[in-house]
Amino acid sequence: MELDFVAQLLARIPLDPRLEVPPGDDAAVLRPPAGRRTVVTVDMLMEGVDFILGPDCPPRLVGHKALAVNLSDLAAMAARPEAAVVAVALPHRHGETLGRGLLDGMLELAAAHGVTLAGGDTNSWDGPLVISLTAIGSVLPGRAWRRDGARPGDLILVSGGCGGSLLGRHLAVAPRCREAVVISERFVVHAAIDVSDGLSLDLARMMQASGTAAVLDLAAIPIHPDAVALASRPGDGRSPLDHALADGEDFELVLALPPDEARRLVADAPALVGTPFTIIGEVVAGSGLAARSADGTVAPLEPRGYIHDFGA
Amino acid sequence: MELDFVAQLLARIPLDPRLEVPPGDDAAVLRPPAGRRTVVTVDMLMEGVDFILGPDCPPRLVGHKALAVNLSDLAAMAARPEAAVVAVALPHRHGETLGRGLLDGMLELAAAHGVTLAGGDTNSWDGPLVISLTAIGSVLPGRAWRRDGARPGDLILVSGGCGGSLLGRHLAVAPRCREAVVISERFVVHAAIDVSDGLSLDLARMMQASGTAAVLDLAAIPIHPDAVALASRPGDGRSPLDHALADGEDFELVLALPPDEARRLVADAPALVGTPFTIIGEVVAGSGLAARSADGTVAPLEPRGYIHDFGA
Repeated sequence: MELDFVAQLLARIPLDPRLEVPPGDDAAVLRPPAGRRTVVTVDMLMEGVDFILGPDCPPRLVGHKALAVNLSDLAAMAARPEAAVVAVALPHRHGETLGRGLLDGMLELAAAHGVTLAGGDTNSWDGPLVISLTAIGSVLPGRAWRRDGARPGDLILVSGGCGGSLLGRHLAVAPRCREAVVISERFVVHAAIDVSDGLSLDLARMMQASGTAAVLDLAAIPIHPDAVALASRPGDGRSPLDHALADGEDFELVLALPPDEARRLVADAPALVGTPFTIIGEVVAGSGLAARSADGTVAPLEPRGYIHDFGA
Repeated sequence: MELDFVAQLLARIPLDPRLEVPPGDDAAVLRPPAGRRTVVTVDMLMEGVDFILGPDCPPRLVGHKALAVNLSDLAAMAARPEAAVVAVALPHRHGETLGRGLLDGMLELAAAHGVTLAGGDTNSWDGPLVISLTAIGSVLPGRAWRRDGARPGDLILVSGGCGGSLLGRHLAVAPRCREAVVISERFVVHAAIDVSDGLSLDLARMMQASGTAAVLDLAAIPIHPDAVALASRPGDGRSPLDHALADGEDFELVLALPPDEARRLVADAPALVGTPFTIIGEVVAGSGLAARSADGTVAPLEPRGYIHDFGA
């Protein structure tokens, strides 16, 4: 039965010239692109934490998200997506239906980004759905974006808009892979991170890694319409800006660039990559975050976002 | 808190010259070995299915197993282990203690096999412990062992002994990586697989992939002492041979080689790789498995082992 079900899944994966040994053996064998580094990232999604299956969240969307969040990590490294392998723990109940739906979502996004699905591990159990996806990309030697390269004087940019991802973008994640690859070929980027846990929290991580501080212009933060919609709900009690700074799962790129490069990127980005980039602040010496309000006053800003709680 | 805990884990991972960007960024950047293919495999272990935490199974052993089963897959491809990334869902209760224990087990085995831990994703939830590990190896172009290359006339070999892994070897897995790499450099191997779900079941998979059948000499199957011990327990009701054919989680190598090569390997293996290899049968035209008993009679053999049950 296992062989039948898994064989059905494998049969739907397109052939790819990058695969010397396709999925279905003990491991996949990839032909790595010549002269490039291998970029590897993994993200696990758990039912009830990262998604709740239901009418608004069919398995196809979970498969999409599992691949998309990993592609977003590759984008944050300016890596070109190449391949992915996936491991799932399927609940016994409706396991095969779930598995097929997951694969639907992965195959669709994989095709859109030139990713070959290279293999997987399909399990079943009495627990909730768990999916762990490992994405492999490539980048020229020394050209990967890192989060520790920001320098005082750099300007900080963010792609798209932030906040309110819970209204749907946290599932229908649109990873900024093409944007990252094109920008990395044309601009000097000192540091990069993607917004997974919250704009302010992820920016704080970049600053901590770089040994620098950031001053954010609060009036400049591009607030996504979803953040406005969420803030307007009765009982929400938070401002659109607050959603933009702390919601997370925006999967936008945060970049630190020298000022001239930053301004050129802001001007060129809409035509070049079809996505707006906005200057939201600058890198300064020091540590932590500060916020400059519309009246010019500057105050410390506590990074906020999604924090895992590990019991000791 | 998350950053602190994850930073503590990351700080324990040794530097490695294969890493251009070490763990802690959005993704790891690896320098792939020149002129070699990239081999990728993933396996997920779930608490209650693949292990039961307790005095006999501390987290360290779970970390060991998670890496070991993937290294066994690399061995089955004759790949040299290079790197691994890991994703975990830690229960809130004792999550940090569990995480540290898992890393202990992974680091120890990684060091023994020259694997660099390149990154991970650390999550927490109310569910059971889940660990998904992706291992990356390398192999010369066209030299990966596959399961679909067995030919009629080949002899079938197995390393070590099979059966009774539940007595401890299912956790203290000893992947046959060194054996595989050395053998691949010196012998013509037509097909390979590792015994994860059961000797007869995994051999049947190799035969199915190769479009061939196998005749096993039941008297030749190397029965592990654990299989004898398990069969002698009151109420077990199974023979040592039955355990050897069906228990699984032996993580031994099953190889198909031309007869001369097979006999040379059996003779050389103890001195060459320190592990015995035994001829257990031969590949013939047809499909499925058959068993030759000590008296020379041949009868069909139903492959048995661990089969996942996916609900439709």
